[in-house]
Amino acid sequence: MTKPMLQVALDTDDTATALNVARQVSDVVDVIEAGTLLVYQDGMDAVRNLRALVPDKILLADVKDADAGGHIGKVCKEAGADWMTCINAATLPTMINAQKEIEVQVELYEGWDNMERAQQWLDNGITQVVYHQSRDAKFAGQTWGEHDLQEVKKLINMGFKVSVTGGVKPEVLKLFEGVDVYTFIAGRAITNADDPHAAAQSFRDEINRIWK
Amino acid sequence: MTKPMLQVALDTDDTATALNVARQVSDVVDVIEAGTLLVYQDGMDAVRNLRALVPDKILLADVKDADAGGHIGKVCKEAGADWMTCINAATLPTMINAQKEIEVQVELYEGWDNMERAQQWLDNGITQVVYHQSRDAKFAGQTWGEHDLQEVKKLINMGFKVSVTGGVKPEVLKLFEGVDVYTFIAGRAITNADDPHAAAQSFRDEINRIWK
Repeated sequence: MTKPMLQVALDTDDTATALNVARQVSDVVDVIEAGTLLVYQDGMDAVRNLRALVPDKILLADVKDADAGGHIGKVCKEAGADWMTCINAATLPTMINAQKEIEVQVELYEGWDNMERAQQWLDNGITQVVYHQSRDAKFAGQTWGEHDLQEVKKLINMGFKVSVTGGVKPEVLKLFEGVDVYTFIAGRAITNADDPHAAAQSFRDEINRIWK
Repeated sequence: MTKPMLQVALDTDDTATALNVARQVSDVVDVIEAGTLLVYQDGMDAVRNLRALVPDKILLADVKDADAGGHIGKVCKEAGADWMTCINAATLPTMINAQKEIEVQVELYEGWDNMERAQQWLDNGITQVVYHQSRDAKFAGQTWGEHDLQEVKKLINMGFKVSVTGGVKPEVLKLFEGVDVYTFIAGRAITNADDPHAAAQSFRDEINRIWK
């Protein structure tokens, strides 16, 4: 079993704040994410500046692309990203065209659980998906649980590399003990912490404890 | 029957090009769209600059938001947008939170045709949708046809204000004669034209001819 990677989602309103957090946590995390909000705010400048700061980390542009995959993939690649996200509502040709330019992750939002479509992604070489805890569940005060675990296992068993995100805290990780999660993605638990480095380290320690 | 509005989608790679086209067509169109590509490239600066150029037009930020609707809605509003888009894969709370901040259009991509969900949008005051011709159909060389017409009519009959986009050219408009389309959205047919103003005017003339 491979040890899960740790990703920080920089969903900040400006690039400077993202750079400040990235500087503090880059020695602890494997993947740095230019969050959707950050890209909406500052565009590809955010990706270019993060790339300048962390030349050796995997850099993700979380654009949640729905269309024009070939062109957007190229734009993200040229800005310095290694990976980009497509939304599950993108058509298959959009994802395939993006994947020709850059490694694609499919973000699983509402209506993603059409397993024939998910199989088509795999059949076309798109092997990464991002599983989000249901927002509705979170609004209703629920936390990570058995349902999420089963969904993640189902996707892994199909052959996907599955990243897990949405209110992930260190204490959530033990739910996934024995499960081959590809990456845990933490956002505010790191970016809003008084000490982002210590917060990132607490995720890393928990990963090291559970996945020996 | 109301006359459809005309919208130009500025899916350019930089703000200057978008401003140049907007300057040439702003007297002919009703809605100026900061395209998704443009926002990915230049962020909210693109929206702010377009707002500066066209203070009296409806300005749309085509962010295709999937999450954090309240915050993204506020960001788009503060940048000067009147409307923003959400992707159909956004959860209902995301759309509702966005709609509290700004007028939301739901973009209908893959998997949108769950009519129970669409009814929930209406029931929560989200009345605008954007109908795209199937990309797959376009890749296969098809053009606008009876299937699209029936889908648009179905949505209008439900009570939606329906915008129509995806390879729309002036000669496509007559397909919708007698149909209460809210807005026709033209992109490259205007932005890539030798004379964007003349191209926009040809859409306007055709709207005026068909919807008297």
